[in-house]
Amino acid sequence: MDIDLEELTAENLTPHVIKVSTENVKNERLIELVTGLIQHLHDYVKQVQLKPAEWDAAIQYLTQVGHDSSTDRQEMILLSDVLGVSALVDTINSAQAKVNSATESSVLGPFHSEDTHTLTNGQSIGSPGVIGELMLIHGTVRSVGGFPIEGVAVDVWETNGNGFYDMQDPRRDGPNCRGIFQTDSRGRYYLVGVKSVNYDIPIDGSVGLLLNILKRNITRPAHVHFQLKHPLYLNLTTALYASDSEHITSDLVFGVKKSLVKSFQWNNNPAALINEFHLQEALQKMRWDGKGLWVLHHECVLLEK
Amino acid sequence: MDIDLEELTAENLTPHVIKVSTENVKNERLIELVTGLIQHLHDYVKQVQLKPAEWDAAIQYLTQVGHDSSTDRQEMILLSDVLGVSALVDTINSAQAKVNSATESSVLGPFHSEDTHTLTNGQSIGSPGVIGELMLIHGTVRSVGGFPIEGVAVDVWETNGNGFYDMQDPRRDGPNCRGIFQTDSRGRYYLVGVKSVNYDIPIDGSVGLLLNILKRNITRPAHVHFQLKHPLYLNLTTALYASDSEHITSDLVFGVKKSLVKSFQWNNNPAALINEFHLQEALQKMRWDGKGLWVLHHECVLLEK
Repeated sequence: MDIDLEELTAENLTPHVIKVSTENVKNERLIELVTGLIQHLHDYVKQVQLKPAEWDAAIQYLTQVGHDSSTDRQEMILLSDVLGVSALVDTINSAQAKVNSATESSVLGPFHSEDTHTLTNGQSIGSPGVIGELMLIHGTVRSVGGFPIEGVAVDVWETNGNGFYDMQDPRRDGPNCRGIFQTDSRGRYYLVGVKSVNYDIPIDGSVGLLLNILKRNITRPAHVHFQLKHPLYLNLTTALYASDSEHITSDLVFGVKKSLVKSFQWNNNPAALINEFHLQEALQKMRWDGKGLWVLHHECVLLEK
Repeated sequence: MDIDLEELTAENLTPHVIKVSTENVKNERLIELVTGLIQHLHDYVKQVQLKPAEWDAAIQYLTQVGHDSSTDRQEMILLSDVLGVSALVDTINSAQAKVNSATESSVLGPFHSEDTHTLTNGQSIGSPGVIGELMLIHGTVRSVGGFPIEGVAVDVWETNGNGFYDMQDPRRDGPNCRGIFQTDSRGRYYLVGVKSVNYDIPIDGSVGLLLNILKRNITRPAHVHFQLKHPLYLNLTTALYASDSEHITSDLVFGVKKSLVKSFQWNNNPAALINEFHLQEALQKMRWDGKGLWVLHHECVLLEK
């Protein structure tokens, strides 16, 4: 054929695709993101000399990850988590916190949900009949300068004592083991939850298949998730990890940071705490056995916007 | 805390994730694929300093690409196609064909379907009432040494004349504009199709959204897809492109190769061809207007396994 058609080769294809994909784009950041994406995808394919059958398997796999995701389940986040991408995004964006001695962030994970409820300090995030030992979770939210911050929305979520988030429970009839609190005039939040347990991530989906093929650990160390929001401060997504978990050094989503590892304390004479934090009603509702409480205490520091 | 926990940083996270992901794997190729994938994903995140909101958008986007895919639609392949990944995989795996003067390959595309039918030479891949001008598609399949190969399964698919594949037609009641033929004892395949047209890829899904944001061309040059299989020869996925298409140099999936560009010829006195290829019955069934036929002729050469 006598047409002016440049033959595409492994060498000239990548700059050609980048040119075609960015030549009409004005947004500099979009150009940067698209250029880097195409460059790295192509570099990967060339480096490993990807075979058509391997490409096909990757396409089928990523499609299935999408299919596994629904309003109740986010398998693509889980995939990003186990490949360390979530932890890396978190790490490179949280350097500022460490420098300023603010609370460090951690991965969001796939189990955050907008389907939660607003509670008041002293209430329990667990439904009556929740499995597990009860735990007081409390602390103060402060600025870097040390001043307590009132009106911080503290979104808390965790598994119940059997290691499942509420969205994994087919009998779920509302939020359980999650809730949003507001810090009071002294910057305090306090609530009743259950003592966190180690748990296996769901392995009945695509990510479970991958972890099985790679013979990787599937257990996360016990932890409680937090997301803190206030109009004048940077949002913080973090978690607190139980120091006595045997998986503290082998977290499959790489979320543990030293500053976020906490000793979950057993208190067998919690009368003063119950009084201070007005827990009587919540404990009665949760059918507390009166034998003591676990306590997770964390002072939290937010960066100003 | 007094635990032996190495702080994860942007520097040590990547080798750590690679170690955890490969230390229990025996298969060398799997180790290579997983190592490269994690390295390039992380390199990309670090290079562009990916923001949490951008990560979130990417997660939502890839999830939606999965949701857009069904038995009738493969949006993840389309995404790979428009990012040039499919063409690159094809290019690096088809070098052997070029060296040996065998027929070059091209991208599979998202519209190949197992829901096709087996036809005999001389039949039409179009249903009666198909839109478009009729076209004889024929050729001989040979070895590199020039010997005709009998019994090659020639899987052909194309859009009908309105630019849609059968799977895009909600009224579809069976395969249309696709079928599988066997080469005869002289290595020949011959069939009636419709003259290929330029067509827009579906833009009502995630890939359409991306192309719109990037202000990219959404039209593919006119072409016919082929997949050839024979037990003694390497499978070949290829396509033939119409030389007169104004999109021949701007294919949005980068599938065009010079050797695959063909002149689709108009023959206004096809009596001899009709006789040679026994097209009488097919043309009658297709309500041929008797005014002439388009002809696409291609000699195909397969590599031995």
